[in-house]
Amino acid sequence: MKKKALHCIDVQQFNHNFLEEICDLADKIREISRTKAGMEYLASILNHKRAMLYFVQPSTRTFLSFYSACQMLGIKCAEVRDPKTSSEIKGESEEDTVRTFSLYFDLIIMRHPRANFAEKIANLLNDTDHPVPVINAGSGKDQHPTQALLDIYTLRRSFLHRGGIAGKQIAFVGDLRRGRTARSLALLLTQFQGVKLYFVAPSEYQMGQDILSFLDHQKTAYEITDDFERMIPAVDAIYMTRLQDEWDREEGISVDIDIERFSFQKRHLDLLKADGIIMHPLPRRQEIAVEVDSDPRAAYWRQVRNGMYIRVALIAGIFQRDKKILDYYLANT
Amino acid sequence: MKKKALHCIDVQQFNHNFLEEICDLADKIREISRTKAGMEYLASILNHKRAMLYFVQPSTRTFLSFYSACQMLGIKCAEVRDPKTSSEIKGESEEDTVRTFSLYFDLIIMRHPRANFAEKIANLLNDTDHPVPVINAGSGKDQHPTQALLDIYTLRRSFLHRGGIAGKQIAFVGDLRRGRTARSLALLLTQFQGVKLYFVAPSEYQMGQDILSFLDHQKTAYEITDDFERMIPAVDAIYMTRLQDEWDREEGISVDIDIERFSFQKRHLDLLKADGIIMHPLPRRQEIAVEVDSDPRAAYWRQVRNGMYIRVALIAGIFQRDKKILDYYLANT
Amino acid sequence: MKKKALHCIDVQQFNHNFLEEICDLADKIREISRTKAGMEYLASILNHKRAMLYFVQPSTRTFLSFYSACQMLGIKCAEVRDPKTSSEIKGESEEDTVRTFSLYFDLIIMRHPRANFAEKIANLLNDTDHPVPVINAGSGKDQHPTQALLDIYTLRRSFLHRGGIAGKQIAFVGDLRRGRTARSLALLLTQFQGVKLYFVAPSEYQMGQDILSFLDHQKTAYEITDDFERMIPAVDAIYMTRLQDEWDREEGISVDIDIERFSFQKRHLDLLKADGIIMHPLPRRQEIAVEVDSDPRAAYWRQVRNGMYIRVALIAGIFQRDKKILDYYLANT
Repeated sequence: MKKKALHCIDVQQFNHNFLEEICDLADKIREISRTKAGMEYLASILNHKRAMLYFVQPSTRTFLSFYSACQMLGIKCAEVRDPKTSSEIKGESEEDTVRTFSLYFDLIIMRHPRANFAEKIANLLNDTDHPVPVINAGSGKDQHPTQALLDIYTLRRSFLHRGGIAGKQIAFVGDLRRGRTARSLALLLTQFQGVKLYFVAPSEYQMGQDILSFLDHQKTAYEITDDFERMIPAVDAIYMTRLQDEWDREEGISVDIDIERFSFQKRHLDLLKADGIIMHPLPRRQEIAVEVDSDPRAAYWRQVRNGMYIRVALIAGIFQRDKKILDYYLANT
Repeated sequence: MKKKALHCIDVQQFNHNFLEEICDLADKIREISRTKAGMEYLASILNHKRAMLYFVQPSTRTFLSFYSACQMLGIKCAEVRDPKTSSEIKGESEEDTVRTFSLYFDLIIMRHPRANFAEKIANLLNDTDHPVPVINAGSGKDQHPTQALLDIYTLRRSFLHRGGIAGKQIAFVGDLRRGRTARSLALLLTQFQGVKLYFVAPSEYQMGQDILSFLDHQKTAYEITDDFERMIPAVDAIYMTRLQDEWDREEGISVDIDIERFSFQKRHLDLLKADGIIMHPLPRRQEIAVEVDSDPRAAYWRQVRNGMYIRVALIAGIFQRDKKILDYYLANT
Repeated sequence: MKKKALHCIDVQQFNHNFLEEICDLADKIREISRTKAGMEYLASILNHKRAMLYFVQPSTRTFLSFYSACQMLGIKCAEVRDPKTSSEIKGESEEDTVRTFSLYFDLIIMRHPRANFAEKIANLLNDTDHPVPVINAGSGKDQHPTQALLDIYTLRRSFLHRGGIAGKQIAFVGDLRRGRTARSLALLLTQFQGVKLYFVAPSEYQMGQDILSFLDHQKTAYEITDDFERMIPAVDAIYMTRLQDEWDREEGISVDIDIERFSFQKRHLDLLKADGIIMHPLPRRQEIAVEVDSDPRAAYWRQVRNGMYIRVALIAGIFQRDKKILDYYLANT
């Protein structure tokens, strides 16, 4: 039988059990990483592996989060970010470019503007003698599975002493139509009992019908509204998103919508539950006022750090080192 | 006596004995690298060294191959690829720039558009108090010595059970006039007894007279032709190359030649010997149809990986760690 | 009490005692680094730390010097150099960008065109739950504290057997008004007894009144002149600088001054004391003729290497590993 690699392509791969396990592993990794000895242990796990970060779409946060996660596990990284320095200007197909990576590296992490490109590459590599795992770090307007993982992880940690994610009310605010993070997270939340989702946006930016149909099918409750302030007191978590206007040109549209109505201001803190949280995948513009940052319910900076730990857990799992890390945790903490 | 560094500048440095030894070392390194313990051993060899990869000409493949090779040996890398981020915009001479590298790093690997630049720098550094080895990773239209090494290594591995390279018939196809890889490999093949070379190209792109004169002098047989299909059944290896049209503008020419006649299509597989091989330095455009990739005689993806191992061997040799690696191999495999 | 990080923002932080200690530590690190075992020891000190090099102003030398220093200490690096690949094009504030770095990395080293930006970030981070040290690697026309450290270190090493820096005569030549290295070094030299400074420049580029006032206040002797050749025999060290014409456009000026009169030519070597030294922060243009390089009094290439060691010492100190290194030195050399 031909060897195949484990890939991480889309959120449809993740079932409830996987989500629980990876969040638990991320918690353990976080604990282990608190000491020099722990960091040295983590850095010994995959010190024989090397990763290519192929990011041809602008990204600081996701790139650095994966880069950091690899470094924590001892994986040596290389990167290709600017297609201008690559062989593509010599006319090579992108499939050839990525196949080349697979011959030098043990893992390919890619962010790409083309929808389904990561999946295509994963299939291509599975047909070669030397398949390596592919992680989708964001493709087109579509999937960004590790962002959804870190969002689930943040929700889970936030509701740790409140019975977990099940039964919580979660609002999504902003450009829901094109924000792949909101779309992916909504899909994953169907795996938790009794959640209710609010989609808060002007009609031009409302959540896509494909997602709504899936929620219907999964019997996950949701409400569609454009009344931001009324929703705030009702929910346990507010997931703010940014206007994705980098797609405007491609879509040939130039909308002029008052998105300001959908921003979280300092005064809104008074409306929010005492144990509610505010999330944002970042980068932000004016969707959340800077004065909100210092409120303990502002979870978006913690979210950034959670992203690093969940990616460490994901990569460790792909290389089947999760059991080994849990053993170390039991023996050493 | 002043200390001098070992440099790798051009293929004229490589004699037959060196070629045999470095290929043998690359084979051993490949074996050692199959286990985590082996990778950890390799990464301990030069973990006190750091390398500068100075690539001011576009390159993915060669850059990443060297980067990977350094990582495998534990060498920490830094890179300068885009002259815009460098001090050159402040008016510094490139000689000063590279001399600076020599003060921070223990090895300089450089790809540069200027012919002879690597050699010039090697000589400059030899005159300083702090000479470090320089490896030429491609200069101008002229030399690309490590590509020639990996090509020799690929031929040697392919003919391992067929008596080696000696006596084989090898065809070069495409833009031979400007393709430095074909030029360098042709030079090296003169070191093997009884080889016969075929140069298959339209007359505008035929192999340069300087190389042909050298072959005459070395009494290496060759044939010049533009009949691609007739040549296929005759040879043991076909070395396809790409039209180097990035030089067109510099040369002030704009040729319109039917290079399609010199491309390897699926139907050509039937003409090729059962144990013949197809090579290509990559990147490719349409010189080889993608459908050819899955044929076991398609050696160009293996060639990529061979490039990584031969560069590990080269660097280990430059720092005189070859003996140490062979000892480890004997004791551990 | 809230945890605060140690930052390195400006030269005003450095007192005489600190300067002596850090130079001494750099000397020890240099000694330790001469062997593989020593390098492995150094690389074990901070192998659990990771650094972000945020360099949005062009720089080769300073960037690579810090990069090398981190690598020597085992610190894993990541870099952001080109704002075009970053989230800023999505409208994120730079404060958010850098705060994100602080969540992934344990150290931020930054070069930035905005004056006081490093200080602003250091203060911002001190107010978060996760402060990390910030090192200013050059901000605006103003501060470049680690350049001043390496200059002091070079002077100290050069005058090791001549009683140290105290009592020496030191000339600054060139664009003193905008050269932040000359400004910073002049400030630091006030900490040494009996030094005398010469500021040698055309009046348009003379040292700023703010620095001169500080020298008056500190009772440090100085002389202002535009007679380059007369000054040469008088001094122990000549600090050459480059015309900083990258600021011309911003300042809206286009001066046409004969800066050639302020360049060090081969013939000037005859005028210089037998134990005098020539320094330059580099990059140079024509301020120092290339023929001067081979004279043993040309200290500017040694200066480059000193910069690497003093930055290793600085970073080790920031993470309070200086004592540990001195202990190792005593036990092992």
